[in-house]
Amino acid sequence: MSTKPFGVAVVGYGGMGGWHTETIARIPEITLLGIHDIKPAREDAAREKDIHVYPSLEAVLADPVVELITIATPNDIHLPIALAAMNAGKNVICEKPVALNSGELSQMTACAEKNGVLFMVHQNRRWDKDFLIAKKFYDEGTLGPVFNMESRVHGSRGIPGDWRNKKAHGGGMVLDWGVHLIDQMMLMMGDRKLESLYATLSNVTNEEVDDGFRTIFHFEGGLIFLIEVGTSNFINLPRWYIQGENGSAQITDWDLNGEIVMVSDWEKRDAVPVVTEAGLTKTMAPRTEETIQKYPLPAVESEIRDFYRNAMAVVRDGAEPKVKNTEVMKVMRVMEAIFASAEKGQSVRLNADCTLK
Amino acid sequence: MSTKPFGVAVVGYGGMGGWHTETIARIPEITLLGIHDIKPAREDAAREKDIHVYPSLEAVLADPVVELITIATPNDIHLPIALAAMNAGKNVICEKPVALNSGELSQMTACAEKNGVLFMVHQNRRWDKDFLIAKKFYDEGTLGPVFNMESRVHGSRGIPGDWRNKKAHGGGMVLDWGVHLIDQMMLMMGDRKLESLYATLSNVTNEEVDDGFRTIFHFEGGLIFLIEVGTSNFINLPRWYIQGENGSAQITDWDLNGEIVMVSDWEKRDAVPVVTEAGLTKTMAPRTEETIQKYPLPAVESEIRDFYRNAMAVVRDGAEPKVKNTEVMKVMRVMEAIFASAEKGQSVRLNADCTLK
Repeated sequence: MSTKPFGVAVVGYGGMGGWHTETIARIPEITLLGIHDIKPAREDAAREKDIHVYPSLEAVLADPVVELITIATPNDIHLPIALAAMNAGKNVICEKPVALNSGELSQMTACAEKNGVLFMVHQNRRWDKDFLIAKKFYDEGTLGPVFNMESRVHGSRGIPGDWRNKKAHGGGMVLDWGVHLIDQMMLMMGDRKLESLYATLSNVTNEEVDDGFRTIFHFEGGLIFLIEVGTSNFINLPRWYIQGENGSAQITDWDLNGEIVMVSDWEKRDAVPVVTEAGLTKTMAPRTEETIQKYPLPAVESEIRDFYRNAMAVVRDGAEPKVKNTEVMKVMRVMEAIFASAEKGQSVRLNADCTLK
Repeated sequence: MSTKPFGVAVVGYGGMGGWHTETIARIPEITLLGIHDIKPAREDAAREKDIHVYPSLEAVLADPVVELITIATPNDIHLPIALAAMNAGKNVICEKPVALNSGELSQMTACAEKNGVLFMVHQNRRWDKDFLIAKKFYDEGTLGPVFNMESRVHGSRGIPGDWRNKKAHGGGMVLDWGVHLIDQMMLMMGDRKLESLYATLSNVTNEEVDDGFRTIFHFEGGLIFLIEVGTSNFINLPRWYIQGENGSAQITDWDLNGEIVMVSDWEKRDAVPVVTEAGLTKTMAPRTEETIQKYPLPAVESEIRDFYRNAMAVVRDGAEPKVKNTEVMKVMRVMEAIFASAEKGQSVRLNADCTLK
């Protein structure tokens, strides 16, 4: 194992670029060598934090100490930067969505293979605790076999007025947030086959790109997974809503509020009908307290620095990458299937590799 | 105007039959003449409340004082009872779902026309206050133009183990609860055309009939309406969730908890990013308090006795029925479209009369 420090440069010093430099600074065995950004204001911001500023991408590529380049630029220029970096022999971590379509991603992975370098996409939200709790429910069957999962991210600011509202720059919420939620779903479902999906896009504050979407995914064995992203939601529905045969769970928000409600007695069915102005219902009467049990959400551990540590281990020791390009390719194809479904107004069926049937 | 009391008999004295007798008892100008039920236990229950018990349907039909018969039996025997009643010259109020399919309903309405009697379906949940508040948002544009409405009814008792879980008796949640929520939606949308829908059914506790469903409706002009009914939901999502361009509203439950959140300042976009274990987001950062305004739900008035009063006014004075058979027919066709969509796993397009395209 080499003891040479693992040198990283960050290209693109916007919101996520700053996040990368801060994360790297928290990892002793990795050295942040500097950043590159085409905007003078961003260069100044870096200098204020005593971060070295490379004058050009070429300067980054020419620095022999740079072993890995993290790309955190707008989405449409991931491709040329990634190809230049890998052709210069650099390993690459690339922000999500890695590319505007699966064809671009193919070029990137082929280039990585040709040059024998690492190319790994920063699917950081695999480390979010809300996701890990949801995955735990699915994996461990806490609620009984899960038959419905709902994953929502709601905001009310529309799309930020930067590149994120431009189609040419890879904007829109399917690419921006969908990529996370789909990646989480696919990781959770593992080998369970995604059979079909039905998608609708919204254009409330923005015509050029989608400012939200809703997709219903049908997995093998009848499991339904709903993903919904909105940017005109002034009231948030829960981040996660999960139904198993013996109970339901809700993870309300990123602060991990929420609860589990499980049936404890199937037999006691006595219901006090719910009476409204105009009718009554026993079917929808709430369960009495003695037939259910409530539990808090389980605790989970997560360490996002493992992402960079894994990148280093792949490069130095041939470890298995934690985010595989085959996984990223499937997510990219699912996003393409979402656009296809929304355009047709029809559900679309998928092959095992997530290409359209 | 006749001063003769308006005599009503109720056929089927289960949950809703009891509800009808109690409602009629609260209307001075209408007289409850008695009930008929094939189960001795129900007959006893009526007698205990000093309600006259007719020994047979024939006895009800032969009673000249009976001007209107309310049918509150299981769904599959609405048709023969309704035809017999109307052919005996009686006016009829029929519980929902009025029939198992649109063909049956056609027979009923034709029979009403032939005999010159009233045939009106008890779409009682048009009088529920949660619905009236939601409709007010849509009609008055309180939240700005509405682009997304979600109507959910969640329970956790499965389907009651009576006729409601049998296909032959018209069981299942599309027919039982869908009929209400679709009727409310269609009434709210008025002339706005329903273009297509996509539906999935659930079978968590029951194989023979659906024990829940989710349908996405596409209306003219891009408005999306989601209806969801579940009987394995141990945590309830809000009864109504409504998005307009300037705000969102939630009606949490039948007790009319909920709130309105409206934007008060579009310009102030400063966001404090939300940081999780593994990332940050400005797009999904909550709005600061000075850019939004919160309001309580509006109050609405409702009087379910107007349903029977209207029936009497139609019969006596030729008033317009509040629930029209053309409306009920459309709802029936929409339910048939839901079954068709779920079976195909595809969205289905609809004609203006809600038949399949």
